Amino acid sequence: MLERFHVPREQEVRVTDAALRQTITDLFVACGVPTEDAATGAEVLTMTDLRGVETHGVSNMLRAYVDWFRGGQLNPNPKQSIVKETPGTATIDGDRGLGVIQGTAAMQMAIDKARDVGVGVVTMRNSGHLGAVGHFSMQAAQQDMVGICLTAMSVLVLPTFGAVPRLGTNPISIAAPANSEPFLLYDAATSTIAGNKIALARRVRADMEPGWIADPDGTPIMEERPVPEGIMYGLGAYNLLPLGGTREQGSHKGYGLGLMVEVLTTLLAGGIPSMVEEKPPLASHHFAAYNIAAFDDVEHFKDSMDRMLQTLAETPPAPGHERVIYPGLPEAESEVDRRANGIPLHREVIDWFNRTTDELGVSRLETM
Amino acid sequence: MLERFHVPREQEVRVTDAALRQTITDLFVACGVPTEDAATGAEVLTMTDLRGVETHGVSNMLRAYVDWFRGGQLNPNPKQSIVKETPGTATIDGDRGLGVIQGTAAMQMAIDKARDVGVGVVTMRNSGHLGAVGHFSMQAAQQDMVGICLTAMSVLVLPTFGAVPRLGTNPISIAAPANSEPFLLYDAATSTIAGNKIALARRVRADMEPGWIADPDGTPIMEERPVPEGIMYGLGAYNLLPLGGTREQGSHKGYGLGLMVEVLTTLLAGGIPSMVEEKPPLASHHFAAYNIAAFDDVEHFKDSMDRMLQTLAETPPAPGHERVIYPGLPEAESEVDRRANGIPLHREVIDWFNRTTDELGVSRLETM
Repeated sequence: MLERFHVPREQEVRVTDAALRQTITDLFVACGVPTEDAATGAEVLTMTDLRGVETHGVSNMLRAYVDWFRGGQLNPNPKQSIVKETPGTATIDGDRGLGVIQGTAAMQMAIDKARDVGVGVVTMRNSGHLGAVGHFSMQAAQQDMVGICLTAMSVLVLPTFGAVPRLGTNPISIAAPANSEPFLLYDAATSTIAGNKIALARRVRADMEPGWIADPDGTPIMEERPVPEGIMYGLGAYNLLPLGGTREQGSHKGYGLGLMVEVLTTLLAGGIPSMVEEKPPLASHHFAAYNIAAFDDVEHFKDSMDRMLQTLAETPPAPGHERVIYPGLPEAESEVDRRANGIPLHREVIDWFNRTTDELGVSRLETM
Repeated sequence: MLERFHVPREQEVRVTDAALRQTITDLFVACGVPTEDAATGAEVLTMTDLRGVETHGVSNMLRAYVDWFRGGQLNPNPKQSIVKETPGTATIDGDRGLGVIQGTAAMQMAIDKARDVGVGVVTMRNSGHLGAVGHFSMQAAQQDMVGICLTAMSVLVLPTFGAVPRLGTNPISIAAPANSEPFLLYDAATSTIAGNKIALARRVRADMEPGWIADPDGTPIMEERPVPEGIMYGLGAYNLLPLGGTREQGSHKGYGLGLMVEVLTTLLAGGIPSMVEEKPPLASHHFAAYNIAAFDDVEHFKDSMDRMLQTLAETPPAPGHERVIYPGLPEAESEVDRRANGIPLHREVIDWFNRTTDELGVSRLETM
């Protein structure tokens, strides 16, 4: 949503979503992932780039997934097991699979349970990175449910007043359907920014905003600054701040929301929080589906959603702003544009694709 | 949690929790509330003050509840009805009762459903103010569940870039049990601050912090300032900002979280959002219970909670800070202190009690 984070025109190469989907599938298969699973994961990543969520599409994370499969940290062909199950809930052991690939079936299980008993919650431990969690929430919304998806991995974010990181960026997502308006789709880290937005800022040479990170001693950096040297894919000695930045501006809320995610993912899934025992690159996830028909008349719900979303989009803007948007609106606009005009990738990302497809002996990514 | 918001020593009068519970019960009964319901509501408010959550105890809200009952906007003796029900969910019409009184039974219904099918979600529309939502989340935690409680009421908060308020302060709460540590208890508005913290700041003559409110044209106020004239219990022409304050510091996240609450409360309960059709002083609520035993071994879960909470409390602090706390720790410390030493109330609050008990012909609040 930060315009200036988009790939600069002179550095962009466009690809169709079909070409991207094909190459991701080929890469996963070359890593040992069964074809059907590879296609499932490719769909998640391609939809993420279609929606304009650059931070969680192919640009930042696909190279990590390939490295983790090739390095043996993730299992390309996991044998998942159900640890506990009730009519409304399940806990799954992911056997070190990639969350991006495993998430679709887990959310479908929550949806099926919600159809039976009104609400379904599936937690998963011992699984890899989940990608853009909003994708799975949207999967529920497309089946007339409210979807919620959360994930927790690693330690990157300071607690309020702390000098040592204790939480991951622990994102929260929700999606809910409307009738005529683009669906509500909220997906955001409980830190001020997602971790790999720093890498993105660095790639496009943008400054950091106040409240994004803390100095190595834990003091919040509260002025605009270039991304410090030494920060590239990792954060070095720097740490992210919880949403709010400082206590006075509400960082205890970002910190508390991050803890909420930790409880609903890692703890409910029977895992140990990363702050206690870190096992990179493993994560825990939470998939929840609320069957709208169990709570309200579905058409009434969607009409009310339309009225709410229209009211938001028609809100008079504050001075200096063009319009008020709601979460999901820019993503829907991006999807229309990118399906028609292709997905812009940075030249450096295309270079990585070419090197990797060549190394793994699969066809190169076709550009437009 | 902001120390300086506590009642100044020279203005404070202490009361025991027993005395406070008794007087609240008497006041509710004098307003036409059945005795058992009155005691239930008094317990919620007294626990809130014991936990040190001044904003949502008797100081700010009790006078509004009494006014709403006496003015007929709220129904002291509501006939609730179940609109829809499944094994895991229910939607309730609150018949204009007070949420503070109705919440306990609604959360218990969610807990009972979670015992049956692993998770329970109860939504309620057409009900009054819910008080400190964390109280109801804690009710689930005390029964070996993870509890979540949300509420939405009124329009006070601007959407990012907007000049007209569209959301309530829409708080999110979660509670989860541990074995030896005080329970995790997070309860916070999705605006930078809760609405009645402004009234509290004014009463103790504290400045506002950057990012709390916007000028009447929607421009965020990003410096420290005294509370503007004309703001007392209402905000006048000023509006609250979503958590984050400005877009650059993440206000789209506070805004999105506020919308999430609106969907899970008002929309799921079959209501119409206040931004579309305002009906003060009515609210919608969401009560969710996750049965820990359905997901994990309960003792394992609580041990993991202990390890996590201890790790947080032992985090080395950043320069200028004494310690890292976790949500629920100061509340537990406050409860121990206040059970022993009484609850401090501002002289002005005692004056209100005396006037009101005299008017309604019930015994005065006994002070220590």
